[in-house]
Amino acid sequence: MATAKLLVVLVALMAAASSSCGPWELNIRMPTARAVEDAAAGVAAPLIHALRPLVGSAGDLGRRGGVPCDSWRLAVEAYNKRDWKTVPADCEGYVGHYMLGGHYRRDSRVVVDEAIAYAEGLKLAGNGREVWVFDIDETSLSNLPYYAKHGFGTEPFNATSFNAYVLEGSALALPETQRLFDKLISLGIKPVFLTGRTENQRAITVVNLRRQGYYGWMKLLLKPVGFKGTAIGFKSGERRKLQDAGYVIVGNIGDQWSDILGAPEGARTFKLPDPMYYIG
Amino acid sequence: MATAKLLVVLVALMAAASSSCGPWELNIRMPTARAVEDAAAGVAAPLIHALRPLVGSAGDLGRRGGVPCDSWRLAVEAYNKRDWKTVPADCEGYVGHYMLGGHYRRDSRVVVDEAIAYAEGLKLAGNGREVWVFDIDETSLSNLPYYAKHGFGTEPFNATSFNAYVLEGSALALPETQRLFDKLISLGIKPVFLTGRTENQRAITVVNLRRQGYYGWMKLLLKPVGFKGTAIGFKSGERRKLQDAGYVIVGNIGDQWSDILGAPEGARTFKLPDPMYYIG
Repeated sequence: MATAKLLVVLVALMAAASSSCGPWELNIRMPTARAVEDAAAGVAAPLIHALRPLVGSAGDLGRRGGVPCDSWRLAVEAYNKRDWKTVPADCEGYVGHYMLGGHYRRDSRVVVDEAIAYAEGLKLAGNGREVWVFDIDETSLSNLPYYAKHGFGTEPFNATSFNAYVLEGSALALPETQRLFDKLISLGIKPVFLTGRTENQRAITVVNLRRQGYYGWMKLLLKPVGFKGTAIGFKSGERRKLQDAGYVIVGNIGDQWSDILGAPEGARTFKLPDPMYYIG
Repeated sequence: MATAKLLVVLVALMAAASSSCGPWELNIRMPTARAVEDAAAGVAAPLIHALRPLVGSAGDLGRRGGVPCDSWRLAVEAYNKRDWKTVPADCEGYVGHYMLGGHYRRDSRVVVDEAIAYAEGLKLAGNGREVWVFDIDETSLSNLPYYAKHGFGTEPFNATSFNAYVLEGSALALPETQRLFDKLISLGIKPVFLTGRTENQRAITVVNLRRQGYYGWMKLLLKPVGFKGTAIGFKSGERRKLQDAGYVIVGNIGDQWSDILGAPEGARTFKLPDPMYYIG
């Protein structure tokens, strides 16, 4: 058994060494010199995660200073961890490998598969009133190129540099979400974008969405400049308006719990993974 | 780098071979003959998870028949996967290792650490009206000894054999939850058990809780025999009664989303991991 496992590891590492292209064709490298591991991440990401210590330099499982990064991430996704400001410094490498190494994409795929199965099972009225709400950042578009240069969420959020990045209009489509988006249109369910991006970013947001292949949305709802209030307050208020206008929100997908909490939530909600930041 | 990793693997496997005692002192073995891996699970569980294929015999990442078990588990914990009947057959080994190999305990610890930090930060009225709701199965008591003999959730639920197991009164305390329970009592917050176990199981449930070291709860609320309705309906109804009686539910912890959804939820909710079954 032991020999067989060593062989598995050896084969994985050899495959990694000969692998050339990074996953998701992002062409992003980890900030530190971990070339072999980066390449390996595309081939056998969980292996890399496992070999990498789950905690900081203490090497201790969350008792003295360290935090077990996979447990931290689960606590974030299950809404046990709230109101956090930054990713634990010890977890930069873990989150980076999670995001770039295939794990994030695999987790997202399972969520979207579930969403599509749900949508396909709906009995639609066919009156054109059924809509599905999509968040934008880290849901429809990925800002991973930005976060990869800024510590994968370990650095405090910098509005200036992030907004400059948004204005480039270079965020990437999340392929899983785009698959859901296109499927819904084919089913006759209308996508509505609902985002914490502000109204003055409308033009570049439209450009970015189109560049990345999104077509056919019904509405793009942005936050008024100077809006005071929480993300939940803004987004649930907009969903209420949709409902009051006669639309039926059959689904709602976002990467933040604040995207999918607050009545009316939508008939069914989906939480995409996001271990990089928290919006309350 | 590659050599260093091979050494890590080798050392882990050697340590595993010489390890004697199972984790959590449960003395449960995986049903199939995986002695080396079982032992290793206590030493380096994530390593074992990684070396074990994440999917079924197809070895395929969720595209043709297989399901990536870690992504499936995340989808369960984040409430993306709902109304599922059994753990995917391919994931029996994965779930077994998750539950027995330290990962489950580590994930639970992070949730409870968060709950304790929250409780310690509360400004209490000190009038004895503040309560915290605890679910029982897979929250306060663990039925892992039962599920380990029944495929870790891959077998359809068998009420007859499970109820026979409950009547043994041999379920184990979840040490993390017990730590929260004791901490709350020391803070002056009163624990209330609220369970889907039925009223005719009250006596053995009390015996089991006491045997496992639980003392000082304020109420033990069980479901009436023959109750028609959902788990959410029953539990939210009981929480409403608590509130109407003048209690303030400062916290609520369970392993099922149906433990913590439905107004009044409690001021803050905590979702413990449970990849073995779903109660809607």
